[in-house]
Amino acid sequence: MELEFISKLKKQSKSKIVLLVIDGLGGLPLQPNGLTELESAKIPNLDSLASKGICGLQQPVGVGITPGSGPGHLSLFGYDPIKYQVGRGVLAALGINFDLREQDVAARGNFCSIDENGMILDRRAGRISTDENNKLCSILQEIKIPGVNIFIEPLKEHRFLLVLRGENLSSDISDTDPQDIGVKPFESNPMTPKSKKTSDYIKRFIDESSKILQDHYPANMILLRGFSQKPKWPSFQENFGLKSAAIASYPMYRGISRLLGMNIIEVGNTIDKEFIELEKYWNEFDFFYIHIKGSDSAGEDGDFNRKVNVIEEVDKYIPKLLDLNPNVIIVTGDHSTPALLKYHSWHPVPVLFWSKYCRSDKLNHFGERDCVKGSLGPHFPAIDLMPLALAHAKRLKKFGA
Amino acid sequence: MELEFISKLKKQSKSKIVLLVIDGLGGLPLQPNGLTELESAKIPNLDSLASKGICGLQQPVGVGITPGSGPGHLSLFGYDPIKYQVGRGVLAALGINFDLREQDVAARGNFCSIDENGMILDRRAGRISTDENNKLCSILQEIKIPGVNIFIEPLKEHRFLLVLRGENLSSDISDTDPQDIGVKPFESNPMTPKSKKTSDYIKRFIDESSKILQDHYPANMILLRGFSQKPKWPSFQENFGLKSAAIASYPMYRGISRLLGMNIIEVGNTIDKEFIELEKYWNEFDFFYIHIKGSDSAGEDGDFNRKVNVIEEVDKYIPKLLDLNPNVIIVTGDHSTPALLKYHSWHPVPVLFWSKYCRSDKLNHFGERDCVKGSLGPHFPAIDLMPLALAHAKRLKKFGA
Repeated sequence: MELEFISKLKKQSKSKIVLLVIDGLGGLPLQPNGLTELESAKIPNLDSLASKGICGLQQPVGVGITPGSGPGHLSLFGYDPIKYQVGRGVLAALGINFDLREQDVAARGNFCSIDENGMILDRRAGRISTDENNKLCSILQEIKIPGVNIFIEPLKEHRFLLVLRGENLSSDISDTDPQDIGVKPFESNPMTPKSKKTSDYIKRFIDESSKILQDHYPANMILLRGFSQKPKWPSFQENFGLKSAAIASYPMYRGISRLLGMNIIEVGNTIDKEFIELEKYWNEFDFFYIHIKGSDSAGEDGDFNRKVNVIEEVDKYIPKLLDLNPNVIIVTGDHSTPALLKYHSWHPVPVLFWSKYCRSDKLNHFGERDCVKGSLGPHFPAIDLMPLALAHAKRLKKFGA
Repeated sequence: MELEFISKLKKQSKSKIVLLVIDGLGGLPLQPNGLTELESAKIPNLDSLASKGICGLQQPVGVGITPGSGPGHLSLFGYDPIKYQVGRGVLAALGINFDLREQDVAARGNFCSIDENGMILDRRAGRISTDENNKLCSILQEIKIPGVNIFIEPLKEHRFLLVLRGENLSSDISDTDPQDIGVKPFESNPMTPKSKKTSDYIKRFIDESSKILQDHYPANMILLRGFSQKPKWPSFQENFGLKSAAIASYPMYRGISRLLGMNIIEVGNTIDKEFIELEKYWNEFDFFYIHIKGSDSAGEDGDFNRKVNVIEEVDKYIPKLLDLNPNVIIVTGDHSTPALLKYHSWHPVPVLFWSKYCRSDKLNHFGERDCVKGSLGPHFPAIDLMPLALAHAKRLKKFGA
């Protein structure tokens, strides 16, 4: 359904909706006839919830499309990710509370390793420590280019944020990150005539950085991607009438939540802390988005068992969640990250939807192949989860007389 | 997904995709509680492939829509058949390597039988031989109309191609083939003011033809349909980055492949020869479209058992296909042709999709009712098969950061 259509039907209620995103939840068997990560996990509480709710596989963007974390989350939040596109740079800025202004151009940076011929050896510079990152960013902060202000902010490990602030900047410039190794970083080229100036600033900044970093192997070069400017979108509250809280430990996910005007709850790195915050803020909000990062990281590392363990750990918190007496619970991922592939994938994502008004599917287990048989079907559009949640939370008026 | 959207995400790979189209694959039971043609067939190799892959029923155009071969194939090739419409005339021209030019108007012709009152007795003139057709076409080639060049090319049996070449021609004129018997052929009328001239040429040509043919019963009249001009579409390779080969013995299917810029492999009339060509050209292409005609012809003849036999024959070639080590295999039809109905039908078409990155459905049999339980679901849009194939062949980039 169109966001504008849903928005017109919204009504107030005291009901509460919880969206629990287990990042990269969907998986694949390691052997053709084996079980996926979720199918292997011992998750008695999720299984029990699945038996009382309705299940399916959701499609974050569309068939065959591998979503980045941005599009994957936007669709869960009810925003069509093809219509609402945002660059990685803006997301990174929002995630660290950077005061991004209207004209600013933001980019996501990586420290990387190159060889003597300039070929990329490691796109993440061996995942240097955040401490090392902090030091390198302070060095880069010394770079001055006439006509523009440059901000460099360290993120986690090898990641940083670059922001240009000045007159007549444009984000229509190409990535320098080739997303591959064994090749040189790309030049950042203007994609429109008016972005030539910005592209020149970036070229100059990269030249200076590469000189400064040359003796800092493994972090002897930088890669930039996702040049972007802050979009102006209707907020989550305007659209759905929900006072919302985002409980997410990683900047990226706080970033996208802030873009929709959600309230950001500061949390530590453990699942336990996230559920403590959920309980603490329970009375203050209508909608809670809880983000679990470990499952995706395990998948990206190709660690099947660790991904299983993260899912099993999440399962332990389900009784605590139920004790809070929510009206709607959605458990899903923003995309699949099979340990077999070590990367985001296009496979549809298991989804468990519970409210006391479900025609329960009575499935025995929350797993990919079980979800095929669920009443949400094998290709449920992720953007329809919000309208479904609002309906079950009695937050949508009847359409038509 | 939109073709343009998919196209932007394409990336190169050495992977290979095979699309095996068993024309008119979907069927119906002869008795209400019986089995369909596919369900009756002994197809151990396809069954085994189905158990390792994912299955479903695909919708070539939309619910309730009976597709012609053109739309049925376009959707399998990832082109929305409602957006990308092509007339039968153009397809016929492409299928025989006719050098159709930009301004030309092409139509598909049938020799037909009419009675003394001009009522159609047989739309196919008793399926006259191709030899007889050749003779009749040379007679029609004698017709001269001032202001326009007329080309008549025999196709198989009762079919021929008519092409008008001249200034300011338009294909917006109506069919003369009523697609029914016991009625007179229609007049070809202009559908826009600028097509009046073309419609006049056609009326004159039909008058002349009917005089010339009056003593050639059963081929004593002609029917024309699918007036059309060559469309300008982005090619299959531009869209998907695939170097593609079409292995099809019938002109119609070579025609549609050529329209998308596929490379046409000349083959004989047997399935065996098609698979020999597949092996021969295996290293030269990324994408192979193999077309099996016999299943549709059997369905149109109402020959249930012959259709079963054709499907069983195809099954024998699956091991040979697997020996080539493709990355993705799709087995489906361009539409259903139940022997019970003796014609194309609107029923969704069984589809078997295999790659080593499938969450296998573990179905026991590749058949219509089994496919309902598959993870592609009972209404999988045929145009989403190409994005799905590209994803599994690792030929699509991630969308968004």
